[in-house]
Formats: sequence, C-alpha cells, structure tokens
Amino acid sequence: MTINNSTTSANVAGVYELFQLMRDGEPRTRADIAALTGLARSTVGLRIDALRELGLLKPVTDAASTGGRPSSRIAFNPRARIVAAADLGATHSTVALTDLAGTTLSETRTRLDIAEGPEKVLGYLVGTIAALLEQIEWNGSELIAIGIGLPGPVVHATGKPSKPPLMPGWDGFDVPEYIRRTYRVPVLVDNDVNIMALGERTMRQPQPDDMIFVKVATGIGSGIISGGQLQRGTDGTAGDIGHIPIARAAGVPCTCGNLGCLEAVASAPAIAATLRAAGLDAATSTDVINLVRAGDLTAIQAVRQAGRDIGEVLNMCVSIVNPSLITIGGSLAPVADQLIAGIREIVYSRSMPLATQNLVIEQSKAGPEAGVIGASILAIEHALSQERMDAMIGPK
Amino acid sequence: MTINNSTTSANVAGVYELFQLMRDGEPRTRADIAALTGLARSTVGLRIDALRELGLLKPVTDAASTGGRPSSRIAFNPRARIVAAADLGATHSTVALTDLAGTTLSETRTRLDIAEGPEKVLGYLVGTIAALLEQIEWNGSELIAIGIGLPGPVVHATGKPSKPPLMPGWDGFDVPEYIRRTYRVPVLVDNDVNIMALGERTMRQPQPDDMIFVKVATGIGSGIISGGQLQRGTDGTAGDIGHIPIARAAGVPCTCGNLGCLEAVASAPAIAATLRAAGLDAATSTDVINLVRAGDLTAIQAVRQAGRDIGEVLNMCVSIVNPSLITIGGSLAPVADQLIAGIREIVYSRSMPLATQNLVIEQSKAGPEAGVIGASILAIEHALSQERMDAMIGPK
Repeated sequence: MTINNSTTSANVAGVYELFQLMRDGEPRTRADIAALTGLARSTVGLRIDALRELGLLKPVTDAASTGGRPSSRIAFNPRARIVAAADLGATHSTVALTDLAGTTLSETRTRLDIAEGPEKVLGYLVGTIAALLEQIEWNGSELIAIGIGLPGPVVHATGKPSKPPLMPGWDGFDVPEYIRRTYRVPVLVDNDVNIMALGERTMRQPQPDDMIFVKVATGIGSGIISGGQLQRGTDGTAGDIGHIPIARAAGVPCTCGNLGCLEAVASAPAIAATLRAAGLDAATSTDVINLVRAGDLTAIQAVRQAGRDIGEVLNMCVSIVNPSLITIGGSLAPVADQLIAGIREIVYSRSMPLATQNLVIEQSKAGPEAGVIGASILAIEHALSQERMDAMIGPK
Repeated sequence: MTINNSTTSANVAGVYELFQLMRDGEPRTRADIAALTGLARSTVGLRIDALRELGLLKPVTDAASTGGRPSSRIAFNPRARIVAAADLGATHSTVALTDLAGTTLSETRTRLDIAEGPEKVLGYLVGTIAALLEQIEWNGSELIAIGIGLPGPVVHATGKPSKPPLMPGWDGFDVPEYIRRTYRVPVLVDNDVNIMALGERTMRQPQPDDMIFVKVATGIGSGIISGGQLQRGTDGTAGDIGHIPIARAAGVPCTCGNLGCLEAVASAPAIAATLRAAGLDAATSTDVINLVRAGDLTAIQAVRQAGRDIGEVLNMCVSIVNPSLITIGGSLAPVADQLIAGIREIVYSRSMPLATQNLVIEQSKAGPEAGVIGASILAIEHALSQERMDAMIGPK
C-alpha cells in the first residue's frame, strides 16, 4: 500500500513534477505547462524561472515562430550539468563523464586492482575525474553528482562497503566522504552488479520490469530489477547469488570462508583451476575464453558445466522473481553462448512451465559499458530527484 | 530509472494527488490545501467539489470554530464507499466488507472446497457479498471494488488463474467477468499468498519494505514484497517457492507433476503422510497440530524437519531478496514455533552473515485474517488509484 501523504514538502505539485514533465525533451510554452499541470500561471512562471536559473530548462529556437518575436517555448537542457560515473571492478575500472541525458562526454578505461585499497583506488578516481573535466574543458562547478559501482556488498544509504570478500581494506570505508573532500556533490555508491543491471535495462526497449543481470567473472553476482525498481534489500545484499550452496560444490572452499558456494566452482578462477587440473595453461578469464575459442573440448565442457551450476541457482531465482529476462555479462561474457547453453539446460528442465513461458535468457547487450552506464543513471536519477530539486531551489 | 513524463493525463497535479494528501485523515481548509499543493485556489475548489460529489471528502464539525459560522474544513470520508474482500483458500473461505480505511464492517467464514470449481465457488461468493450487504443494510451502489485471493497462480492483469495445480476447472476461468455479471465494479484477483503478504505488512509498524510471507498449508507458497511493493513477476508466479527442488525430496512425486519439489515433503499433507507411515493417525493440518500439541515426538520431529526443508529454500530467498522479515502463516501456523526452529537452523548456518544481520523470522501476526485484510487492501488501492479517480471524475 503506497499512500503519498507527505505534508512536509511545501510542493506537492512542485518544481519536481514540472521538471519531470519536461525531461521528455519536448519544447513547451508556459500555457502548455499550465494546461498540463493545472498549476496557476503565476506558479508555472516562478517554477520555470527557478529551473532556468539552474540552467535545467532553456529557451528553444522556434522555427515555426513568425516575425522577429523570440520563441516563448522552453525545453530540457541536458547539458546544464554533468555527472561522473565509475565502474570499479576487481581488476579494471571505467570512469566517464555524461550529461543529464546519460550521453557520454568523455571516458577512460584502465587496469586497476581493487585490492590495492580504498585510498589508492579512490585517489585514482578523483584524479581521473579531474583529468576528464579538463579534457572536455569544463570546470568542476557543473558536476552535480558522482555514481560509483564497487565489486562487493555496499550499504547504499551510507555508501560504505560491507565486509566485501574481494576488497581488503574497504570494509566500512566511507567512500562518499573521501570523494567529497575533492568534489562536494552527492556521491552514490552501489554494488557493481546492481549498476550493471541498471545499465543493461536502458539497452532494452521496452525496459523490462522484472529482470536479472548475472555477472560471471572473478566472482558471481546478480542485480535484480523487480516491479521496475532495482532491488537492494535490507542490507544491500539482494541478488548475491554467488554464495548460494549447490550440490556439486559440496566441500569446496570459497573466498567468502564458507564451503560449497556456487562461486567456488563456476567463477572464472574456478573454471581456470579446473582447466589447470586437466593439464591446460589457464589462469584468467582471457585464458579460458581463448581456449574455448580455440575449440578446446575440455574448456568448452568446463564452461558448459559452470553454466549448469549457475542454472541450478537461476532456476530458484526464476521461482522467486519470475523475470522476463535473464542476461549474462561479466568478463566471461565472450563465452556466454556456452554458459547460456548450460543455464538453459537446467532452467528449462526444472522450472514450472508458467514461470518460463515468457523468459528470455541471453547475453548482455550493454557489454563492458553496462556498469558505467548504470553508474551514470544512479547519479542522474539522484541529482534530478525530488529531494535534490527541493534542496537546490528551496521551498516556494 | 523512473521518469514520470506522462503527458496523456490532463492532471499532472490533479485530483488524485489532492485526494492522496487527504487520506491521512487530517481535516484541512481550502487555503491549507492550496498552500500545500501550490495549486491555484480556483483549481483546489473545483477538485474538492468533485471529491465531495463522490462523497470521498466531507465537511467536518469544527469544535474550534467560533460563532455560528459552519466549519470550512474538510476531511477524508472512509465510509463514502465500501469494498468486498474474499480469501478463497483450498478448503476455507473468508468474505468481508470493509470501508475505504480497511475497517471491517461485516465478515463471514465458511468451509468451502476450491476444487468444486469456479461456478460453484464464485456463485457462493456473489451470494455471500449480497447477504453481507443486506446485513449491514447497504445497497450495492456503494460497493466500489472487489478483491479476491485464490490458492494458485493468477495473471493479475486479467484476473484469470493460470494452470493452478490444486484447482480443477479454474485454469483460464475469467473470474472478474463472472463476478461482474452481478457487481459491475473492478474485480482484482491475486494469488492468496500475495494478498496474505499485503495483509501481514499492514500489521507491522514500520511496514517493512523487504519481506517474505510464507504460507505452509495444503501447499507451500510465498508472497514477496521488495522495495515496498508486492512483486508478482512477469507471469504472476513470483514467490512460488513450493516447487523449487530440494535434495531431500529427490524422486518424491509432487501434485504439480514434477519430482522432488519442496511441497512434496514439507506441506501439511506430506507431513501427515510421514506420520501415517510411522503408524500415527494423521490426515489433515489439524491432526498434525494436535499431535504436536500432545507432545508426540514423531510429529514434533516431522514438523521440525519440514522447517529445515523450508529453510533450504528460504536460505536462497535470503540471498536473492535480502528481507528484514520472514513470517510464517497458513494452516500450520499453530506449530510455527517448530517450523521456525528448523528454518532458523538452516538459514542462520548457511546464509552470509551480512544478509541475516537484520533478519527476523517469526510467526504471522495477521493470523487467519491476513488474506482477507490483504484482499481489501488490493481492492481499496485500486479503487483509489489515479486511474480510477480519473475515470470517476473525468479530465478537468
């Protein structure tokens, strides 16, 4: 039951609703807006002024206008502000600047080991944002928010990683506080798989309301969108499927300290270990991918088996979430065909027919960009949220 | 990313928002409302008139008013309309009438076998609603919506059951169409466990945003609330945990036609079968409950083991949903202590510590009323939704 009876906001029908209306990009006159919102003309004028002052709305050149009179139409100005977005993975990072429509203005990708600790990694991030800002010749004043994805559990409300297994030194580290020493803007932090799910969703038309993005890489995790919303759960661990026990992993130690987790047998390092035990030369995702591409049967079978293992867990996800899309990304995405063959084998044989009748299982479309796209969405949606707009403009 | 840029509605800041503001029950003047909403006074007046015409707002007696002048304050009138709510279980049904605040006006509970088919069961429902309306001396004209829970998968958008295992004759039956032959109001149909989750949530303060209601009865199912919203999934099967395979059920046939489902070993009939195999006289939930209450060790151990089996599946639910509350209801609720002991044993030993640090596992507080309370919420929220309000009042 969702009852919106907030009486603390001074603007039940406020600047926010007016701005959300304009985010579709359509140019409109003040009269259009008054008609669409039911707001008094004077109120519309005040709110448009406030949004123009922020640069979020701008007058548009009106081709249809006759005579020398300037156009009275206004429209959303996505270039009014920029956001920074970072996808910090276990071994690689991508940092980008985008406008308020999510269009990338500048981007850089580099090898970076998350295990080097927060000071070093976030120091790099702060410096990279500065370099990117310089590159596009904007100063920091237009930067309105920063979105960051990290490869471990994060308490989204505080931006602090919470006992992340692959990230020594990061537990409880105040990521927003560190970044805000340099950039005094809201810093949104989330699990990397959550932001990948957000990014993947934008690549799909129509955007699915119920979907699972599965990352298969150094670890295994998933980002779950239910009812059109990214779900984080109570402690930010929703979708943490890598540590669900499966029968084939019984007794196998996992990096989390438990035995028998999915991740212990089906992650990229686990597959590489299987291949080494069979006498092959494999240490990384790239080695596994190269062996599969070279047609090595042992490697193909190992990846297919990892797909079946992941399928055991996804079968339960299907019963619990009933998604219309499961999409596979992460560093093993180039061999997603083999993974997906194994996943389908299990999911379609074990699930209730009704739960899979509309289910598509396929490779990520967002590819390696999924994370950074999602991080920018996280930053944009926060920057343009009702709360932020109220704070920027103040009660009217 | 949720961008509300609907331009089809004529009321971005419309009657609906004004009414939602008033649903808290606080009496307000027109001036209060204009200040809170930023709407023009004339617009406020028109919208209040529309809502008063529908009876949804009413003038209040103002004790503080001086002199003979009538009060100008208005407030929500929950008795303006009523809804009917039905929880149709496998063997019992509860039917109630409530006002728009969810307060029960009249209720009846009876044995009713869902397997008797839709015509007979829904015929009973139609007659019962008529009898309840007569009892409270209201005619049908104030009835604004009907909410119904059924013990099987339902496509919520159409109100049709979809291959329900325990409901012969119901597959694809147009429940709303049948009911609407008598009552020409919106009919909302959902899985009984979903409405129980809605009902249970209203019994909790604060209402949890991430919770799982587990029904353990003739079948086993769950209703999942994530991010504050009931999640139905793509085909209405979200939370259908009874048919997830577990190791201890390997090879055991289930009513769904598969082998090895949780429900095949941990439902009330499965526990009763275990007890009969041990020479005890048990056929129903009541028999199992009576044996446990009498201190029969075989019965206690069988229920505890069912709890462990359910715990195997809930352990995965915890990884996927990360709830703050798991609550156990259904006909075996009276022995929930024993079930919960088994569930906790498994969930707390297998889950990641972070995912369970804020997790409470306990018996349902809503009890046998959970379903009918939830069905009334389903009906009320629809009846008072933006779409319905727009339809009632028309564009302004």
